[in-house]
Amino acid sequence: MRLRGRKGIRENLEQQEDLVVLDPREYKGKWSQMFGNDRPLYIELGMGKGQFISGMSFKHPDCNFVGMDMYDELIRRGSEKVRNIWSGHEPENSHNVRLALGNIESIEEFFAPGEVERVYLNFSDPWPKKKHGRRRLTHPRFLDKYRTLLNEEGEIHFKTDSRELFEFSLNAFAANGLQMGSISLNLHGDGINEEHVMTEYESKFVGQGMPIYRCEVKVGELALRRYHDHKMEQF
Amino acid sequence: MRLRGRKGIRENLEQQEDLVVLDPREYKGKWSQMFGNDRPLYIELGMGKGQFISGMSFKHPDCNFVGMDMYDELIRRGSEKVRNIWSGHEPENSHNVRLALGNIESIEEFFAPGEVERVYLNFSDPWPKKKHGRRRLTHPRFLDKYRTLLNEEGEIHFKTDSRELFEFSLNAFAANGLQMGSISLNLHGDGINEEHVMTEYESKFVGQGMPIYRCEVKVGELALRRYHDHKMEQF
Repeated sequence: MRLRGRKGIRENLEQQEDLVVLDPREYKGKWSQMFGNDRPLYIELGMGKGQFISGMSFKHPDCNFVGMDMYDELIRRGSEKVRNIWSGHEPENSHNVRLALGNIESIEEFFAPGEVERVYLNFSDPWPKKKHGRRRLTHPRFLDKYRTLLNEEGEIHFKTDSRELFEFSLNAFAANGLQMGSISLNLHGDGINEEHVMTEYESKFVGQGMPIYRCEVKVGELALRRYHDHKMEQF
Repeated sequence: MRLRGRKGIRENLEQQEDLVVLDPREYKGKWSQMFGNDRPLYIELGMGKGQFISGMSFKHPDCNFVGMDMYDELIRRGSEKVRNIWSGHEPENSHNVRLALGNIESIEEFFAPGEVERVYLNFSDPWPKKKHGRRRLTHPRFLDKYRTLLNEEGEIHFKTDSRELFEFSLNAFAANGLQMGSISLNLHGDGINEEHVMTEYESKFVGQGMPIYRCEVKVGELALRRYHDHKMEQF
C-alpha cells in the first residue's frame, strides 16, 4: 500500500469534516449536540484500521459511534472503511459515526462524565512486559477513567487474542469490583459468531484457529445497586 | 493394579478408623470436635486418588482437611497416599486429614452452616453436554450449597484443565455475585508453580504442555461487606 506523506494525510483528514474529528476536546459534553440526536454513545478505544467501528455503525443505526486512535493514517484508513461500508446506503442526514484523533491517556478531556454508554476495547496492545503494565487499556488507572465517563447503564466490552492480557484484565475487573458477564474463552469456538462484528486482527486470528477471549463488564451505579439488592436478599 | 473385591475394600476401610470416615453425616457440626482442635476446615470435593489432599495435609499441619469422594476404591487409594506421604513423620496425636465417603449432592448433610473455611474443586468432571450442566460442581445450585457451608472468611479454590468448564464457572461465579481473584489462564505457564500442590491429573496435563485454569472465589459475608465499603467509597 502506498504511504502518503504526513502533510497529505492531514489535508485529507481536514477535508472530511463530516466523519473526522481532529480535536475531540471540542466536543466534550457536546457529542449528542454534534450528532444532532440523543442516541447512546458507543466508543472504541484503539480502533486500528476501523473495520469494527464501521461495521458497528452500519449494523446499529440507532446508536452513535466514535472510533479513536492516535495516528492520522489510521483515521484516514478508517474513514475509507466507513465510506465503503455505507456506500450506496448513505444516511439522509449526518453519519452516526465519527473517527477521532486522540491519545486515550487523555480520554477524560474528550468525554464528559456519564456521556458514554459503552466502551469497546478490541485487541488492545497487550504490553507483555510487566514494567509496561500501566499502559494496558484494562489497567485499573484506565478502568477508573472509564468508570467516570460511563453512564448508569455503562458497559465495557473487551475482546483480545492475548491470553496474558485477558488474564490480567479479568483480575483487574474483579479487583475493582466490576461486575463481569458473558465471559468467553473461545468466542468463535463453535464457528464464526455472527452476532459479533469482527476486527481485522480477529478475522486473521480466527482464520488461524486461535481462540478469541471476550468479556463484558458493567460499571454503572445502577448495576451496583442491583448487585447490592441481590446480595442483601441472600444474607 | 490388582482390583480387590468390593467386600475386601470395605473391610479395609473399616479398619482405618483413624483416617477414613464411612458416614460423614455423623460429624456434621462436629468436625472440630472429631479432630480435637479448632483449626480451619478445608475440604476437597471429588478428591480422586488423593494426591492433592494428602499433599496439602502434609504441607499445612495448621489446618484440618477432609477429602470426599463417592467410591470405596478411591478412598482406599487416598488412604495409601496419606500414609505414604506421612511415612516417617506420623503426627503425634490424630491426623489432620480424613477421607470421607459421600455424594457431593448431599454435602449439606455432612457439614453444618459456617463449618467450612475453604472448598477445593480440582479437575471436576466437566460434564460437557449442555443437558448435564446441572451436574457441574460449579453450577449455581452447588454454589448455593457451598455458600451455606462456608464461614465469613470462606473461599472456593477451583482449578481445571477444561476451558469449557472454566468458562462456565467464571460466568456462574460472576452471575452469582461472588468475588473472584487470582484468576489464572495458564497456572504453570512460567514453569511449575511450586506454591500449588498438584493433583494426579494436573501432573499429567502439565507434562503434556496443556494450560491449567485456576480461580479463587470469596463467598463470605465479610468479603461482601468489604466489597460494599469499597464501592461506597467510589460513589
